[in-house]
Parts: sequence; C-alpha cells; structure tokens
Amino acid sequence: MAVDPNASIEITAFAWVPEGAQGLVKDLRVRWALEEAGLGYRVRLIGGERPADYLEDQPFSQVPCFRDDSVRIFESGAIVEDIGEKSETLLPRDPQGKYRAIQWSCAALSSVEPFVQARALLNSFWADEEWAEPAKPTFDHFARLRLQQLSDSLADKPWLEGDRFTIGDLMMVTVLRLADRSGQLADFPTLAAYVRRGEARPGFQQALSDQLAAFAANQPRLEGAAA
Amino acid sequence: MAVDPNASIEITAFAWVPEGAQGLVKDLRVRWALEEAGLGYRVRLIGGERPADYLEDQPFSQVPCFRDDSVRIFESGAIVEDIGEKSETLLPRDPQGKYRAIQWSCAALSSVEPFVQARALLNSFWADEEWAEPAKPTFDHFARLRLQQLSDSLADKPWLEGDRFTIGDLMMVTVLRLADRSGQLADFPTLAAYVRRGEARPGFQQALSDQLAAFAANQPRLEGAAA
Repeated sequence: MAVDPNASIEITAFAWVPEGAQGLVKDLRVRWALEEAGLGYRVRLIGGERPADYLEDQPFSQVPCFRDDSVRIFESGAIVEDIGEKSETLLPRDPQGKYRAIQWSCAALSSVEPFVQARALLNSFWADEEWAEPAKPTFDHFARLRLQQLSDSLADKPWLEGDRFTIGDLMMVTVLRLADRSGQLADFPTLAAYVRRGEARPGFQQALSDQLAAFAANQPRLEGAAA
Repeated sequence: MAVDPNASIEITAFAWVPEGAQGLVKDLRVRWALEEAGLGYRVRLIGGERPADYLEDQPFSQVPCFRDDSVRIFESGAIVEDIGEKSETLLPRDPQGKYRAIQWSCAALSSVEPFVQARALLNSFWADEEWAEPAKPTFDHFARLRLQQLSDSLADKPWLEGDRFTIGDLMMVTVLRLADRSGQLADFPTLAAYVRRGEARPGFQQALSDQLAAFAANQPRLEGAAA
C-alpha cells in the first residue's frame, strides 16, 4: 500500500517542516492507520501560508484533515478511530475490546501527551526563554510520573491490551516517539522497547517514509509553491 | 435522574478535593453524560490514599473509572463516547454526525485543554514558582490563540455543529469551564456564553450538584474514611 493520487480518501499534510519536527507531524498517525488497514489515500499538501478556506476544515490551522465518501473531519484521534471502524484490524468489535482501545487513544492524547509535549518544548522552541531551565524540574516531575505509570501498566505485554495491536497503541507509540526524541525515555526501557516494536511494523515504516518523502521534495522556500 | 446505589453502572469519583478543584474534577463529564442519556449510576468514592488495586483499573491513579455490564474502562473521553453509543441523545448515528462529535471531543482534549490547563496551573499550583510570572506570556499566547480559533469556529451557532448538543460540546464546555475559572474567557464573550448555555442544561446542574454533594459530605480529614 502507498500513496495513491486516485484514492477516494484524502488527507492533508504539511509540504515541509523543520527537521526537528520531521517524522513527528500528526498526519503520520493517520498514514500509519491507513497502512495498517490497507486503505489507499491521496495527500493534499499544505504550505506555511494556508489556503484561504482551510480554517473551514481545520479551525486550529493544523494537519491532518481527512475526507472520504462518508466523513469530513479533523483531529488525528477521531480520524484514526474512524479508520478503525472501517477496518477491524485496528479496533476490536466487541464493546470491551473497542472501548479499551479508545480509552488508550484518549489516554495518549490527554494523560500522556500534554506532559511529554510541554517537556519537549522546553528542550526546543522554549530553550532560549529565561524561565525554561528553572521550569524544567516541575515539568520533568509530571512527565516522568506519567511515563512511569504507563511503563508499569504496560509491564511485559507487547501491546497495551496484550497481544493485539490497536488504535490505542498506534496513538500511544506516536506520543512516546516525541518523548523519545527529546530524551525522556532514557530511564524507561520498557517504553523504549514498546516504541521500537511499533516502529518496526511495516505500516509504520511505509507511513514514515511517505511523510519524509514529501518533506524531501519540498525543501525550504518551496513549501508555499506546493500548497 | 440522580445517583442510584442499585444501578448497574458504577463510576469512581474523589470523596473530597480542595475548593479550587471542586466542580472541575473529570467525573463531572461522565455524570453529565449519564444525566443527558437518562442513565442511573452509582458512585464509588476514592480517597487520597487509593485502594490497593486501584491502579489496575486506572494506571494514572485518577478518576473517573466506569464499569457496567459491557465495559470496564477509564478516561473521561472514552467513557463519554461509550455513553453516547448507548444513547443517541449525545452521539448522532450517521457517520458524519458521529465523527464530527468525536472530533470535537478529541479537539477539547488535545487542541484546547493542554493550553488552558497549563495556563490555569500558572495561576494556581505553580503560582509561587519563581519561573511562573516570566512564563505566563508564552502560555498566554498559546492558550489565547486556541481560544480565539475556537471562538471563530463556534461563531453564532449554539453548539459546535449547529443546533444539536453532542458529546463534543459536553467535553468542550467542561474544558472551557477550567479556562473560565482562571479568568481566561474574559476576552472571549462567545465562549463565555457557550459555557453558560452548557451549564444551564438540567443534566449539567444535576451532575454538578451530585459531585459537590459528595465533597460537602466528606470534608477534610474524612476523605480517607470514605474510600
């Protein structure tokens, strides 16, 4: 499976982002889910200057948006769940299996990502702020607390609910890749190994390769033209 | 509808929290959804010292957990969606209506809450940190950006998707109440009015009243006994 210009599914992605964000932009979650589900998709690349009507599809001016014959939505968490409903591969059909997977997707977005993201920003965008260094211990405390709790819950299972990979793992692995990139997983070998298991999946490899290929084809000063 | 000790649905809630958190704890979302759906529920109150096996149900040691005859889950976003699947009142049945509602629930958790929550913490838990004041402009910028984008998207509609109240509104209103409590909605009258519309719903009033009643019955130094 790969990007298909004639597919009925369309997603939006950025034509280019700085190197520190490459491989982390959230259309990766949707590309990965589509690969796992075996669904082809086309990509609408968006430049730094958004198309005039883009806010109608995405009020926060972010990517990805998703549209097909049945829905037109944004938010990677909702899109990945919709793909899961279209393909049992990613989302069990029994209520308990289904909502445990959705629960972990929500946990990734709400209980882990905010802490990991804030801590990552202190290492990157906010690194030169005078308050960044003194603030780090507080954010470290919260991020490490959640990572330890998640590590304890995962324990020796391959995936969060056991043997079966779900949208919950897909979302959690992409959140933890941000933590990994900023060095936050150094003391959490269980979570680092979990991220490696996710990244080793062929669907992830294809999704990452396709996101990076767009960036390589749209180097700086050309991203506006691609939109 | 009200709390019913014999209901098959059980949620967990804190027996008591400090006044600044009263009315904001996340079991409120689940209580509200259950009221809107007309489903009775019983409450298992949890103290500051958690029961020995609580992490098995909630690895982050938070509330609410939810269990009934079909699921046993945590994360308010997942629980509210499950309640929506059990009652069309909160979650449309057509794919576009359903996933637009889920999209807004994800937007509340992922695109709005982290910014609003960080800014609120600078006014409360982190107020005495030396870095809190110099950090405020940065967090203000991100929080205000998202609130403005949300306000523009809501515009003159009563609810995020128009005339129909969904789980997306329920989640977003509870996130915005946190912003409101910390003064962040002063320049966003559209959002303040939206919060008032949500709070005026009878289901919200009942849910809030029931959360506060538990706190009133379990004043400080007694919360351990209630668990």
